[in-house]
Amino acid sequence: MIDYSLYLVTDRHLSLGRDTVDIVQAAIRGGITCVQLREKHGSTRQFIEEARQVRNLLDCLASTIPLIINDRVDVALATGADGVHLGQRDMDIRDARRLAGSSLLIGISVESVDDAVRAEAEGADYVGVSPVFATPTKSDTAPPLGLAGIQAIRAAVSLPLVAIGGINADNAAAIIRAGADGVAVVSAIVSAACPAQAARTLKEQISSVKGGGRHGNQ
Amino acid sequence: MIDYSLYLVTDRHLSLGRDTVDIVQAAIRGGITCVQLREKHGSTRQFIEEARQVRNLLDCLASTIPLIINDRVDVALATGADGVHLGQRDMDIRDARRLAGSSLLIGISVESVDDAVRAEAEGADYVGVSPVFATPTKSDTAPPLGLAGIQAIRAAVSLPLVAIGGINADNAAAIIRAGADGVAVVSAIVSAACPAQAARTLKEQISSVKGGGRHGNQ
Repeated sequence: MIDYSLYLVTDRHLSLGRDTVDIVQAAIRGGITCVQLREKHGSTRQFIEEARQVRNLLDCLASTIPLIINDRVDVALATGADGVHLGQRDMDIRDARRLAGSSLLIGISVESVDDAVRAEAEGADYVGVSPVFATPTKSDTAPPLGLAGIQAIRAAVSLPLVAIGGINADNAAAIIRAGADGVAVVSAIVSAACPAQAARTLKEQISSVKGGGRHGNQ
Repeated sequence: MIDYSLYLVTDRHLSLGRDTVDIVQAAIRGGITCVQLREKHGSTRQFIEEARQVRNLLDCLASTIPLIINDRVDVALATGADGVHLGQRDMDIRDARRLAGSSLLIGISVESVDDAVRAEAEGADYVGVSPVFATPTKSDTAPPLGLAGIQAIRAAVSLPLVAIGGINADNAAAIIRAGADGVAVVSAIVSAACPAQAARTLKEQISSVKGGGRHGNQ
């Protein structure tokens, strides 16, 4: 059973010059439960190198946190990642499943109830619902869905549902209360002065709703 | 036996606003023997769509021209392409072979004798040698190898050798004489007023050295 409750999505450009692997390591100390590496601009070789470093880090820690790769099914398969996250402009889930079989979790970005229902019908393992709120991280997103959008998607599918877009420690609890299984954050952790502390604060907010307190989900 | 003699590499940004699939179709009429789709900037879904269109085009024509995908092993596998072309900053050939087995030709970009020898040792199916001459197409390349560089790599490996970088109808024949099995071109075809005619002219130059005249290799 995968714990999607605090899901970090990396972004090199928002990391204030710090190394992505260092940010991931700090965020793990802070209590993230899932990590997605997103590298839209570097070379494939750099992406693979970074994924292997995070894979090694998780293995060293005997961590069960799933490593999820954005967009690149080939990179996910080559690096022993646990999953791939696909946007609506990435590979179609059916193609990805044909290449990966059951060896990878497949997460799909959805922006509407219809997207979510289709993703479930096509065999997604979870959906990333975005944007919940307005976000500075991405400029090409649909209008914010708000908490009502989360509730509507929650009512329509039984898949694990991870919300993303403009989430921080002030609104994370409300999103879980609206029915999300987890919150995904980018800048709230990668741009924080102290990513470990930022993750810890988010985790506390989530745990205040889900239970388990600061020692994690139980 | 693959005919690498006239190898088109696509580039949407150099195509003067014309559709890549249309350019490929014209270039096929002009006599190209190989096509590599290179899409560094669009979405994965667009790349897959374009690859499928070219795959369908080649299948309709009952063409044996191999369809080669730049960088993306996953896109190559998903679209029934014949091969993948990997630069030195793309996936390592060993990883690519593990994912693709023998289902894909694997071409490797090399910039030196050492690169070429290593690519051969690692099981490449062909090498793309670049840049032969100075080229406006790419700005991040090593110093031009010249005809002497082609000769040196030819002497060092027995793999098929495709030269790329600054090649046009005026120098194509000299490159084949220097030992290349083929010439790869980008702007000489995709930026030409008439891509079919540009391919035909290049083909005549190559055939004047390799034999077979304007009716192609026999």
